[in-house]
Amino acid sequence: MTTTATRRTRSDGERSRRTILLAAARLATVEGLGGLSIGRLASETGMSKSGLFAHFGSKEKLQLATIGMAEEIFQDEVLGPATQAEGLARVEALCDRFLSHVDRSVFPGGCFFASAAAELDTQPGRVRDRVVSTLRDWVGLFEEAFATARDRGEIAPEADPDQLTFEVNAMLAEANGLYVLHGDPRYIAMARRAIADRLERAAA
Amino acid sequence: MTTTATRRTRSDGERSRRTILLAAARLATVEGLGGLSIGRLASETGMSKSGLFAHFGSKEKLQLATIGMAEEIFQDEVLGPATQAEGLARVEALCDRFLSHVDRSVFPGGCFFASAAAELDTQPGRVRDRVVSTLRDWVGLFEEAFATARDRGEIAPEADPDQLTFEVNAMLAEANGLYVLHGDPRYIAMARRAIADRLERAAA
Repeated sequence: MTTTATRRTRSDGERSRRTILLAAARLATVEGLGGLSIGRLASETGMSKSGLFAHFGSKEKLQLATIGMAEEIFQDEVLGPATQAEGLARVEALCDRFLSHVDRSVFPGGCFFASAAAELDTQPGRVRDRVVSTLRDWVGLFEEAFATARDRGEIAPEADPDQLTFEVNAMLAEANGLYVLHGDPRYIAMARRAIADRLERAAA
Repeated sequence: MTTTATRRTRSDGERSRRTILLAAARLATVEGLGGLSIGRLASETGMSKSGLFAHFGSKEKLQLATIGMAEEIFQDEVLGPATQAEGLARVEALCDRFLSHVDRSVFPGGCFFASAAAELDTQPGRVRDRVVSTLRDWVGLFEEAFATARDRGEIAPEADPDQLTFEVNAMLAEANGLYVLHGDPRYIAMARRAIADRLERAAA
């Protein structure tokens, strides 16, 4: 109900801003955040360059706003539903929702943040810092959930939350990369199998 | 000895071609293969644009030649030494040499092919096809080595070479990505630990 109410009171300007940013977030996973020029986005959305410039002002501001939109989508698709659970169940839900959002091609180029990180890893600046901070939050969620799982006795007392987070995220990232590259859902299944196996072993 | 002999007989043209391609391969891991313009490379190597154009003719040819150079480097650094061994020892050597070449920043942006795959995943064409084919060869090497290991009884008869290849490569790719992003060697150590653990379990 809240969402509907919010939607109703959104101004035309806010609606068109969201339309542009949705197109931008999807486009960025295919052509990179660096490929997000005002001109390219104008031809993608059918809006005028001057109209887009009025919305965002600079390429960097457009990139940062696009990341904000990708965060909103990721919140709705992955984080919101998964953080209903706690401990080991949260880890499982995060993995499940992440792989599902890749499988359903929520973004045509796979995970927005994996794509952005690969592009920006060697390019210092505010845009890279924002992406790195989102990735840190994601990793932190896993480390915390594994620590809770350990405190609750859901995984062995000697289990290492940082190492488990690394391993589980490796499977998620590999599935994402290979699925986008080859378009073959077997990589999603392989990641599910590897993660189930790893978590089972951590629990033993 | 063969290498020295080959080097001695290389013409000036061949030498300058190699110098350019070395710079191009390193640059491509930072700015992308798409960022490899003749102009950008001219300012990087101090050569004239017209001289570079005479060497390569088109951007696509330059990109393909750059991939060829990256393959040569990867052969010297990783494949050559690792394929001296067979079966499980080959898997271990491939992982060790790969992580070592990341750790030593042979390419400033980490693994050349991981970088290229992330950039080109959604961009059809000859350049993408070439990168995909190199990656397939890499994956094939692992699958074959795991199959040999199984035939020799080095890993359990029920071990799945494709699944093991997926998991081990996930660790390598994650270490590469995080090392380049954060510059922290702990990710290399985490991958080594995860792989040793996984191979030990496959052997049990």
